[in-house]
Amino acid sequence: MSVLVWGENVHEHRNPEVAAVYPDGMHEAIAAGLREAGAGEVQTATLQDPEHGLTVERLAATEVLVWWGHLAHDDVDDAVVDRVQARVLEGMGLVVLHSAHFSKPFRRLLGTSCSLRWREDGRKERLWVVDPGHPIAAGLGDGFEVPQEEMYGEPFGIPAPDELVFISWFVGGEVFRSGATWRRGAGRIFYFRPGHETFPTYHQAEVRRVIANGVEWARPAGPPFQEPGNVESPPAVGDLVA
Amino acid sequence: MSVLVWGENVHEHRNPEVAAVYPDGMHEAIAAGLREAGAGEVQTATLQDPEHGLTVERLAATEVLVWWGHLAHDDVDDAVVDRVQARVLEGMGLVVLHSAHFSKPFRRLLGTSCSLRWREDGRKERLWVVDPGHPIAAGLGDGFEVPQEEMYGEPFGIPAPDELVFISWFVGGEVFRSGATWRRGAGRIFYFRPGHETFPTYHQAEVRRVIANGVEWARPAGPPFQEPGNVESPPAVGDLVA
Amino acid sequence: MSVLVWGENVHEHRNPEVAAVYPDGMHEAIAAGLREAGAGEVQTATLQDPEHGLTVERLAATEVLVWWGHLAHDDVDDAVVDRVQARVLEGMGLVVLHSAHFSKPFRRLLGTSCSLRWREDGRKERLWVVDPGHPIAAGLGDGFEVPQEEMYGEPFGIPAPDELVFISWFVGGEVFRSGATWRRGAGRIFYFRPGHETFPTYHQAEVRRVIANGVEWARPAGPPFQEPGNVESPPAVGDLVA
Amino acid sequence: MSVLVWGENVHEHRNPEVAAVYPDGMHEAIAAGLREAGAGEVQTATLQDPEHGLTVERLAATEVLVWWGHLAHDDVDDAVVDRVQARVLEGMGLVVLHSAHFSKPFRRLLGTSCSLRWREDGRKERLWVVDPGHPIAAGLGDGFEVPQEEMYGEPFGIPAPDELVFISWFVGGEVFRSGATWRRGAGRIFYFRPGHETFPTYHQAEVRRVIANGVEWARPAGPPFQEPGNVESPPAVGDLVA
Repeated sequence: MSVLVWGENVHEHRNPEVAAVYPDGMHEAIAAGLREAGAGEVQTATLQDPEHGLTVERLAATEVLVWWGHLAHDDVDDAVVDRVQARVLEGMGLVVLHSAHFSKPFRRLLGTSCSLRWREDGRKERLWVVDPGHPIAAGLGDGFEVPQEEMYGEPFGIPAPDELVFISWFVGGEVFRSGATWRRGAGRIFYFRPGHETFPTYHQAEVRRVIANGVEWARPAGPPFQEPGNVESPPAVGDLVA
Repeated sequence: MSVLVWGENVHEHRNPEVAAVYPDGMHEAIAAGLREAGAGEVQTATLQDPEHGLTVERLAATEVLVWWGHLAHDDVDDAVVDRVQARVLEGMGLVVLHSAHFSKPFRRLLGTSCSLRWREDGRKERLWVVDPGHPIAAGLGDGFEVPQEEMYGEPFGIPAPDELVFISWFVGGEVFRSGATWRRGAGRIFYFRPGHETFPTYHQAEVRRVIANGVEWARPAGPPFQEPGNVESPPAVGDLVA
Repeated sequence: MSVLVWGENVHEHRNPEVAAVYPDGMHEAIAAGLREAGAGEVQTATLQDPEHGLTVERLAATEVLVWWGHLAHDDVDDAVVDRVQARVLEGMGLVVLHSAHFSKPFRRLLGTSCSLRWREDGRKERLWVVDPGHPIAAGLGDGFEVPQEEMYGEPFGIPAPDELVFISWFVGGEVFRSGATWRRGAGRIFYFRPGHETFPTYHQAEVRRVIANGVEWARPAGPPFQEPGNVESPPAVGDLVA
Repeated sequence: MSVLVWGENVHEHRNPEVAAVYPDGMHEAIAAGLREAGAGEVQTATLQDPEHGLTVERLAATEVLVWWGHLAHDDVDDAVVDRVQARVLEGMGLVVLHSAHFSKPFRRLLGTSCSLRWREDGRKERLWVVDPGHPIAAGLGDGFEVPQEEMYGEPFGIPAPDELVFISWFVGGEVFRSGATWRRGAGRIFYFRPGHETFPTYHQAEVRRVIANGVEWARPAGPPFQEPGNVESPPAVGDLVA
């Protein structure tokens, strides 16, 4: 499997607190977790790369794209968003992390606001498995805790997920649909909530396990689906009525 | 609209604490809330009535059935469960409350275990609206609290709901899919979590509002659907291929 | 209820065959069907109106928008598409007809290609009701036929519908998901297949019935949903953990 | 993978026409197709075996159960149906073929009538792929034809499928949701329509491919899910609120 972890890579260079937690960048920590889990060939790309590191060729060679962004959603080129959307529709998996709920590719593919309630309070989050037979929940038991996290609360402005895997509980009284999937075209999308930049969330074993499970789940089932486009069809089965 | 509230009516006669909260029975408190909301003609029936008050005629005249049970699920006659299932499939709405997650009609219609994690702790429950445009959430804003309730926690052994309206937060650290809908045949089913027998939950305005919304949502869209059964079909449209 | 029927209004002025079938424009025929069914106050707007007749004020006053387009999808201003999307998310219903499967608002809200297989053959289409309890199927029995229609075939590039109401059978051997619904934000979307411009489809009683049912189904359940946006939340329920 | 193909094995002994097409029984033809596809260890069992060949031990060792039945649904012991249901909820896959739409395990797990319209006419069926990215559709292109089959028509009395993979077109003018999936508990269920006993359907390459894909798709994602049952939960996370 060929996996590409895309990181916005901005906080890391502006905020020493983030740089301390993720000295090689958040994308490298996420990629390290995937390599550790044996998730195939794992590469990284960032906003600052030419074409954000998401050329036509590279996307064509990518089976699952993992996306983290926050401050610079608007700096992502619309032409690149077009490409990502097209690749998902033909089968590439997409794993969307935390604040990337507001990224252009996620909003484009879902068609809704993707907005939510939030609070930077750095307290405990508990994620409950609500779909114990789902492959993304494999090995997580009833769920797990992240010791310090930003709070995200409902309502989350998404289409009803095809599958809901995790729901989070927050100390301050909120709940959130923390792990959810959608299929779009031939591609699979998994959104996973945790991952505020100032906390070592992507170093935590359970979080890495979920992301690895998600990447495995999102891999294409077959060769790229060549959508017929909107094309006129000959009466190829016209003989059926003969 | 013709609504029938079915109550098991057992706790009320065994436990003075329950009788104090619901002197006329829980079913009458639920019915009173519906009458208050103008939900049409609202009647009640109980386990102790002949045929549990659910004769063929009465079910045929019922548009929405509301069900509360707990101690005596096993005492419900299977022939009556058959009738309830059949009426739901032909269009009768079914609103299932609290411990009736384990009632025979609910389990029969869903086909799964319907089991859950629980704790009688009598602390606060917060219900969040996760689908703000849903008619069952009308008038409830972001959600509401029930001051004292039993805890129900995930995993809840249900098929993925067609629509998820509420998620509950509990002080002890759990979450629960508290308001969920399914369509089965021509009928609509709404499950709503709160309502432990020792607390005055069914006297609370927001809870009554949700149940009234649920009953309104569950009413049949048309006349009873006469399922063709499993019948041989003449080639009535055979001329299509001429 | 306030309904607005939007028509592209281009074929009618270029093709005498279309003008003969729809002398007042397709939008007026669709509107006439809705008025006949008593669907509330029904108005029309076209591509040629200032801002395509879809000003902020008019959309704010519209409860359900019906959309037919084909030749001029690209001429619809993106700012208007933004508005339509925003209004659907806050609760406006949207009924999308025939070739508007490729319209900007539909593609924007669904996030997929919305492409399909097609053939202009003008033969019989049979629509089967696959969800007999659905309000959009009310009064249609097992289904109905349209004597002459363009063929649309699978695969249809849409997200899996929340509800599938009709499937079409075509003489040439194809099938199509002809009536499908999605909820996006607080809004409801209904796609309905028939309606090629050269055939009198929108004069047919059953087709009018489906569109009227769809408009009724799509009306908002409550006042416009004011999405919180992506906003910071105070620990309003912080007392829960005291 | 451990696969068990269950066959009713009645037609084969009563009807020489069926015996001629399936001299070793339909279950053996289905099993042969799976072995040919390399679907792991494939065994068979029939109604006539002690406990229908579905002992507790054997079901515990089965990862995917394939089921064909027609004449003798009522002869299947309810205790065996209980076991099959329980095993599906803990993760065993279930592939349900043709007339087994009316089998006890399928109806039990879905909770609906599962009835349909049908006609024994032995003409052509065309199956269209409506979800080209689905693993069950892998290798099937746009779809395929079965030269001679019984007709099944809508409405099919099932809960809305989680995923719809195939829709069939019949010469006589009907359509049918021919390939559909549901998840129940930790188990996956796939229904596939073709397979009337008098036609050599289970010898056809495309049909065998679909069943092999379905078996692969339905295999458990992890170890058997041990449902907590309906059990009281200690405040294990009570420290969260400290």
